[in-house]
Amino acid sequence: MIDYKKHINKKITISGFAEKIRNLQWVQFIVLRNEGKRIQVTIEKSIPENQKMVEIVDKLTNESTITVTGTIKENEKVKMGGMELIPDSIEVTSTSAPELPINIANKDAALIDTRMDNRFLDLRNDVNFNIFKVQTEFVRAMREYLYGNDFTEIHTPKLIGAASESGSEVFEVNYFGNKAYLAQSPQFYKQMAIAAGYERVFEVAPCFRAENSNTNRHATEFTSFDLEFANINSYEDVMKVEEELLVSGLTAVKEKYGNLIKELYGVDVVIPTIPFPRIDLQDLYKELSERYGYKVPDHDIGDMNAEAEKLTSEYAMDVYGHEFIFVTGFSKTKRPFYHMRKDGIPQGYDLIWRGTEITTGAQREHRYNVLEGQAKEKGLGKDIEFYKDFFKYGCPPHGGFALGIDRMTMLLLGLPSLKETMFLFRGPNRLYP
Amino acid sequence: MIDYKKHINKKITISGFAEKIRNLQWVQFIVLRNEGKRIQVTIEKSIPENQKMVEIVDKLTNESTITVTGTIKENEKVKMGGMELIPDSIEVTSTSAPELPINIANKDAALIDTRMDNRFLDLRNDVNFNIFKVQTEFVRAMREYLYGNDFTEIHTPKLIGAASESGSEVFEVNYFGNKAYLAQSPQFYKQMAIAAGYERVFEVAPCFRAENSNTNRHATEFTSFDLEFANINSYEDVMKVEEELLVSGLTAVKEKYGNLIKELYGVDVVIPTIPFPRIDLQDLYKELSERYGYKVPDHDIGDMNAEAEKLTSEYAMDVYGHEFIFVTGFSKTKRPFYHMRKDGIPQGYDLIWRGTEITTGAQREHRYNVLEGQAKEKGLGKDIEFYKDFFKYGCPPHGGFALGIDRMTMLLLGLPSLKETMFLFRGPNRLYP
Repeated sequence: MIDYKKHINKKITISGFAEKIRNLQWVQFIVLRNEGKRIQVTIEKSIPENQKMVEIVDKLTNESTITVTGTIKENEKVKMGGMELIPDSIEVTSTSAPELPINIANKDAALIDTRMDNRFLDLRNDVNFNIFKVQTEFVRAMREYLYGNDFTEIHTPKLIGAASESGSEVFEVNYFGNKAYLAQSPQFYKQMAIAAGYERVFEVAPCFRAENSNTNRHATEFTSFDLEFANINSYEDVMKVEEELLVSGLTAVKEKYGNLIKELYGVDVVIPTIPFPRIDLQDLYKELSERYGYKVPDHDIGDMNAEAEKLTSEYAMDVYGHEFIFVTGFSKTKRPFYHMRKDGIPQGYDLIWRGTEITTGAQREHRYNVLEGQAKEKGLGKDIEFYKDFFKYGCPPHGGFALGIDRMTMLLLGLPSLKETMFLFRGPNRLYP
Repeated sequence: MIDYKKHINKKITISGFAEKIRNLQWVQFIVLRNEGKRIQVTIEKSIPENQKMVEIVDKLTNESTITVTGTIKENEKVKMGGMELIPDSIEVTSTSAPELPINIANKDAALIDTRMDNRFLDLRNDVNFNIFKVQTEFVRAMREYLYGNDFTEIHTPKLIGAASESGSEVFEVNYFGNKAYLAQSPQFYKQMAIAAGYERVFEVAPCFRAENSNTNRHATEFTSFDLEFANINSYEDVMKVEEELLVSGLTAVKEKYGNLIKELYGVDVVIPTIPFPRIDLQDLYKELSERYGYKVPDHDIGDMNAEAEKLTSEYAMDVYGHEFIFVTGFSKTKRPFYHMRKDGIPQGYDLIWRGTEITTGAQREHRYNVLEGQAKEKGLGKDIEFYKDFFKYGCPPHGGFALGIDRMTMLLLGLPSLKETMFLFRGPNRLYP
């Protein structure tokens, strides 16, 4: 981004949106917005050379786009950074209709659905706009951590031949008259990469879930940051990589956008200390009961519901002063068949951050016969034959996890809903724009 | 990657695949492969401490995975880098079935379809394995170029409400009993980001084309590296960014993998000089006719077919000694409605590399009324209403392009087909594994 301060008394060309236009008797002002950065353009009406510009600004509508060439001058009286742009020329590059369907400055003046209908305008609001600036830096830094650790990037197919994993909540595609499905996750394929001899792989890509529920935490499509790596000793190795990955991402975000996030979203970016606290689910139930009077509903035994996640964060903060906490020891009935088990206990974890589960990670079962048994137990048969084949000809011990970057961003910025967070939210009733 | 040379006379633990096992009278050898890197493990049978290892190796099958702890010793007689690993312990972490369905060392011994059925084994071949090491570096470097130029990463929805763009060749999804479609490209949504005020955006994500043809150049799903940026003066600005982007990517690839690519694929990585040559389509027809006797078939007038692309590369090499060439001046009947036109000529280009088109780029039409006219001319109506809305309330001049990274990788490594290049190819008859 250009630092306007460095261009004082120099010629510059700035393009952007005419956010505000004030047409006074002797002078015209434009607030020119470029990627959330603003500068005042000042046109003295009495100067003969300015007449053409004055006529242009007379007709200019808010949110039209203009390209201004001029000189940046210091001016103490200007609130916007003590500078103004004195133009030599103004070119209107596009004209906005005079009435906007939503109020950009006051995003909460419209219903969320109206805002989503007009997301291309809604995103012009600073709070919304900067979501993707922050997310870009977060994902960039996490990728950099992976590159530095010899991870290979893979691009696995989203069109798949079998409804795999669970069978439910999967979208069906008309594939030249036959049926295909949309991948719910790259799980099987990142494991295929391990079987193919890649020691460490990652993928950042869309996942699809045909979940017909309207909550703030679920979308039918979201972007998953997926990892898988080989030659681990236990899921402790997986948790360690996740700790380092998150510290890398959050450190970069704090450095580049910490102040902006505090200012716009009122949230601190906290770099977590390593190791994150860990707790076994049974111990957690006990703690939550004793401390907060929480009782697990019968159908959630061996698992966590939204309330438990919230209290677990409270517990982590109260006891460890930590925003993150790993929970281990989930029931095998609540975990997928491909999680490795030891004494019947899945060798995996959930990671809770700011009251919400952000990851399920695990060591995977790489032993063909054991895997087959666990698949049968879950009633999975023909659909996962192709997957089981990956383990027939040598496949090292491995594990991994996934982060939903939309959900991560939501929690990072303290946003109330995925509808606010995603570039374009997709839910059962939302396919537009 | 570990440099074994730096570990000579030191203890080390190496995990990998037992690529070859030789069991002689006095000694056992294992070729241990880790991410394409090989080291010989040597076990002297006569040493009493080795008895447990000898028994393990007696039963070891090729392609099983093992973890070996030992000391790396120099040994001039060993062909594999003049080193060997003298083990203290060998652990078998997974056992391969004795017979493999394909020959890993000799990939061309099996039909391409058999290889694709067993892609998790096929990828263990060095030539296949390294495709994704090279691609990772290529994409990494291109992303780095974009980050350095303040591009914002977006993740646009693949589930869309209208069959948009062309209407044909789009997959239909059962969306809770209604119809949704799979995005053929993020074109409309990266333009939405521009309308939302992002000056420069990119996305690396899957695209879907329901093209029922079995060629080596087309897949039903592929990974697109997409860019869009605002405040350009003409498509010359778009070409300039593409030149710089490609030079960044190719320079990084050459530096890290140039030698490997020469050795494994027999291909040189050539860093192109900037600017790439440019030619107008009418001039090109003339040149191709005069030089190579090429005549455009009537139905391809105003466009290029595969033969023309091939000859165009020949022309670029013959005249400019350049691997890349931009072709401009296509017919508006052959270009989408959203390309800006000047005197009826679409303001865009194709980029040809090594005989194949790798990009269509253009300045987009950002003026609502003109866009509407061009859409009507192509018979597009209701389906693109939501898209036209993006241009109602100010949208700066902009342009962009897309690169298919699978096709790029294919050309970079001189591979004959996308079936060879993609992690998992998807075509009309291929949804597995």
